[in-house]
Amino acid sequence: MKNYTELYKLISAEIENTSYGQSPAELYEPISYMMALGGKRLRPVLVLMACQLFDSNVSKAINAAHAIEVFHNFTLVHDDIMDNAPLRRGQQTVYTKWNMPIAILSGDLMMIKSTQLLCETETNELKALLDMFNKTAIEVCEGQQIDMNFEARNDVTHEEYIHMISLKTSVLLAASLHIGAKIGGSSDEAAQHLYDFGKNIGIAFQIQDDILDSFGEGTKVGKKIGGDIASNKKTLLLIELLCSCHKDDKALLEKLMNNSNEDAKISGVLELYKKYQVKEFAEAEKSKYLNLAFQSLEKVKSNEEAKKLLSDTANELMIRMS
Amino acid sequence: MKNYTELYKLISAEIENTSYGQSPAELYEPISYMMALGGKRLRPVLVLMACQLFDSNVSKAINAAHAIEVFHNFTLVHDDIMDNAPLRRGQQTVYTKWNMPIAILSGDLMMIKSTQLLCETETNELKALLDMFNKTAIEVCEGQQIDMNFEARNDVTHEEYIHMISLKTSVLLAASLHIGAKIGGSSDEAAQHLYDFGKNIGIAFQIQDDILDSFGEGTKVGKKIGGDIASNKKTLLLIELLCSCHKDDKALLEKLMNNSNEDAKISGVLELYKKYQVKEFAEAEKSKYLNLAFQSLEKVKSNEEAKKLLSDTANELMIRMS
Repeated sequence: MKNYTELYKLISAEIENTSYGQSPAELYEPISYMMALGGKRLRPVLVLMACQLFDSNVSKAINAAHAIEVFHNFTLVHDDIMDNAPLRRGQQTVYTKWNMPIAILSGDLMMIKSTQLLCETETNELKALLDMFNKTAIEVCEGQQIDMNFEARNDVTHEEYIHMISLKTSVLLAASLHIGAKIGGSSDEAAQHLYDFGKNIGIAFQIQDDILDSFGEGTKVGKKIGGDIASNKKTLLLIELLCSCHKDDKALLEKLMNNSNEDAKISGVLELYKKYQVKEFAEAEKSKYLNLAFQSLEKVKSNEEAKKLLSDTANELMIRMS
Repeated sequence: MKNYTELYKLISAEIENTSYGQSPAELYEPISYMMALGGKRLRPVLVLMACQLFDSNVSKAINAAHAIEVFHNFTLVHDDIMDNAPLRRGQQTVYTKWNMPIAILSGDLMMIKSTQLLCETETNELKALLDMFNKTAIEVCEGQQIDMNFEARNDVTHEEYIHMISLKTSVLLAASLHIGAKIGGSSDEAAQHLYDFGKNIGIAFQIQDDILDSFGEGTKVGKKIGGDIASNKKTLLLIELLCSCHKDDKALLEKLMNNSNEDAKISGVLELYKKYQVKEFAEAEKSKYLNLAFQSLEKVKSNEEAKKLLSDTANELMIRMS
């Protein structure tokens, strides 16, 4: 059985040894650049871990793992254009380093390459894998659009928020596990339980992310505390505050949201977060989704050691993030 | 056997009866808008015509035909952003009517939808269909990038130009025929001959398009004569002129290319086109590729009536364009 580090090395070596193409260079250099930026490579590792639950020969899932990582990076390249983001993992984004047309087109190419990689999987169930992959890819696009729509709204409900983060981030984790499991030879039932595990753990991760952006230790989190507050991002914290605060505080909050003094804005909103105990609310929500996730995982009948690795990985990621 | 009009109606009805999705509306309305703009729908008709060469039941190729048309429209949505184009088929482009993020994301969704539609084909050779589709999709992206690269260059060779238009426009016509033929039950050999037919006919179409932009009758072509000259577009005509004209005329041409008086520029370059007989050169090139195309088509062993329809369609398109 291979642990996280070993699986990480496996997928990283696969990425490093891949030539995505040569000519025209304007199109392929951004792809190599983006794929070399690294990161946790959580999604492809999850593909391999899910395969390992049912078959120790994880190499049969390597193309699918690679496909999911290329797809994820495609969404990052395009999201960075839409969000006007200058940096990604501390480096220039593709559209900043090159230009917008190149970022659109190299992103398009990555999307196609991801399907191409998935098609290289040796399987009798290619159609089923592609159905899950395409359905998920569509949901991820929907999630990004809903997230952009939230920018102009102050009346986002909790349910809408959970729906949005499910689409934008969780379903890809869920699909990674589902696809890996099916390649490993899992039953549809077990693959579905793993999907549910991934979806709920993804929601918990995102809520944790929201909490840390306002309450984390800056150096540990690796970014400035209060970035979400500064940009009026509709996180679970802000949504809960908007829903629960009294009339006077609502007026104060709306004033703060329009305050151009960033430090005053962040400290003011943090005060309200404390007054209305929104952190505690978010922690409870996070626990709810964590519990749902582990309930689903328990139902999976598979290699117990490999299952413990998956469970430990999820727990460690939650702790490492906090 | 079904003729062009009947096949056109078949694919048009399929598109009109399809709901690409509902929510979020910002994402799906541009897709419906784009798909309703119409056009000749040449690519999906070619899929059906190629199927019909081997099987009169063209309905088995309808999902693939639909997939190709959605893919083609995805490229138009993204190309219009890159080219800053305000109009498409006389209507506002998606990025003008909505905005750039929506045009990027709805284009992405169309790309995914096209793969999803192709996967709905009832076939034992899904992998082979997807391989052809993905390879072609990648080439189309490469062609668009090479075309953008040409904007900054005055030393594009004839070979580079033919390579670019092959990728940007011809291979999708070729793949449409290949995919349709395979769904109809064609041999690999016949499908390859049809691919070659489509590729060469596509090159001939594009050269014809270049000729008409400078020498067509404005009202017939439906756009202003000389648009390519005005934008210094590297067409086969301009490339031939740049390669063949004498030193003094080259200096004159370079001056004209920098002339901000559009009418003077167009009439000046047209004079040089006439002096160096570039139209005649382009006509000869067009004929060369037309001959190559029909040589390939002749090698296809299939229903003769259906083959004549395909051949007549290609000829009629060339005449209708002129």
